[in-house]
Amino acid sequence: MKNIVLELRFDGTAYHGWQRQANALAVQQVAEEALYGITGAKTTLTGCSRTDAGVHALRYVCNFFSDTAISTERLPFALNACLPRDIRCLKAWEAPQAFNARKNASGKRYRYIIVNSRFEDALMLNRAWHWRQPLNLAEMQAACGYFVGEHDFSAFCASGCDAADTVRRIYSLTVKKKGGQIFIDVFGNGFLRNMVRIIAGTLVYVGSGKLSACDAARIIASGDRKTAGITAPAQGLYLQDIYY
Amino acid sequence: MKNIVLELRFDGTAYHGWQRQANALAVQQVAEEALYGITGAKTTLTGCSRTDAGVHALRYVCNFFSDTAISTERLPFALNACLPRDIRCLKAWEAPQAFNARKNASGKRYRYIIVNSRFEDALMLNRAWHWRQPLNLAEMQAACGYFVGEHDFSAFCASGCDAADTVRRIYSLTVKKKGGQIFIDVFGNGFLRNMVRIIAGTLVYVGSGKLSACDAARIIASGDRKTAGITAPAQGLYLQDIYY
Repeated sequence: MKNIVLELRFDGTAYHGWQRQANALAVQQVAEEALYGITGAKTTLTGCSRTDAGVHALRYVCNFFSDTAISTERLPFALNACLPRDIRCLKAWEAPQAFNARKNASGKRYRYIIVNSRFEDALMLNRAWHWRQPLNLAEMQAACGYFVGEHDFSAFCASGCDAADTVRRIYSLTVKKKGGQIFIDVFGNGFLRNMVRIIAGTLVYVGSGKLSACDAARIIASGDRKTAGITAPAQGLYLQDIYY
Repeated sequence: MKNIVLELRFDGTAYHGWQRQANALAVQQVAEEALYGITGAKTTLTGCSRTDAGVHALRYVCNFFSDTAISTERLPFALNACLPRDIRCLKAWEAPQAFNARKNASGKRYRYIIVNSRFEDALMLNRAWHWRQPLNLAEMQAACGYFVGEHDFSAFCASGCDAADTVRRIYSLTVKKKGGQIFIDVFGNGFLRNMVRIIAGTLVYVGSGKLSACDAARIIASGDRKTAGITAPAQGLYLQDIYY
């Protein structure tokens, strides 16, 4: 059996996240059904990450085992003929048998987009979080430093999060503005459930004066989800890249 | 009567262009109906430009006459409560009686986006033209120079174009690449019907070797639509800005 790795890009608007589930359509199910159509065999994809409903991915990596006769390099063409247009396979390659898209991931890069303007952006519907009030960019940038490094991020984990180990390392966290859009870019070795969205929500609280930049240190130290900001809505989140 | 100017932004995907028409939904109709709901008076909007079905606008300007009691600065809030989310009113102000959004426009800036990659971009559906084969950026850039200045652009006008005067001035035309996307930016004093889309189609022909950069001069001089490239699809076109 070949261990085949797929690189996908998807607009998450129409899907209930990556993970296959009983009563809602997930990206995993759509991709597995397309593979079934092509290879004739039931396929289980191992995805690099769970994603929430509405979250987008510029580069999502998954793998599966198959003895399909279709050449791996032709696979994206076959897949894209079967997939809906909001999920595209960009690349496929063969990996060593031991490769696991989830377990072997060593780093992930996310972007969170905020439209910071009086009115919603007609061209960013389902693609960003619209925040009406002005945000203090310098305060948000000042808060970023507290997140960088290895920390117990319990305060930035959705309630009901069942991670055994809540320590993660953030390599970089930056906030920049371009036109009416604010980009929060975060790169780390791994993320807890909703962690990026809670960081984004906390930075927006800092930018709007509900919290100060140095509160970030206190919130991280507290380990208490209730001290952090709100969970920013899913549609502003993009999995940008994943590293092995 | 006040002469009220509106600044709109819209995702053109769901609309048959700006101009109201009998059998299809246009942005003008939707905006006029929203104004009717708010002001209680039938309203005719004068738009800065016709746009084709599927074309987007980052900043579209239109004006209308009204004796509404609603303050002009509150108008965007009232309008956005009635408009669909893919059309937003960003601003409203009062202009002198003589102001006409179409006739007084002195310059327009357009962007055309091409996704130049083997597979379509799941996050740019209805937002760009997907061109599969590699494009020679340097050749496309070399062709740009021939368009700049005042020319008779008959060769870049849709057949059936009824413009009395086909001379237009292009102030700048640039091609740049960012990631897998190519941006064609053009700024001029006015544009013939389909002119930007035919320029984009011609530049893509230059980039793919079907035409050479210096063919651009010959095509402009010929005044013959058949010598130019294809009309690039509408969904890649954005009205970026308009000047008075």
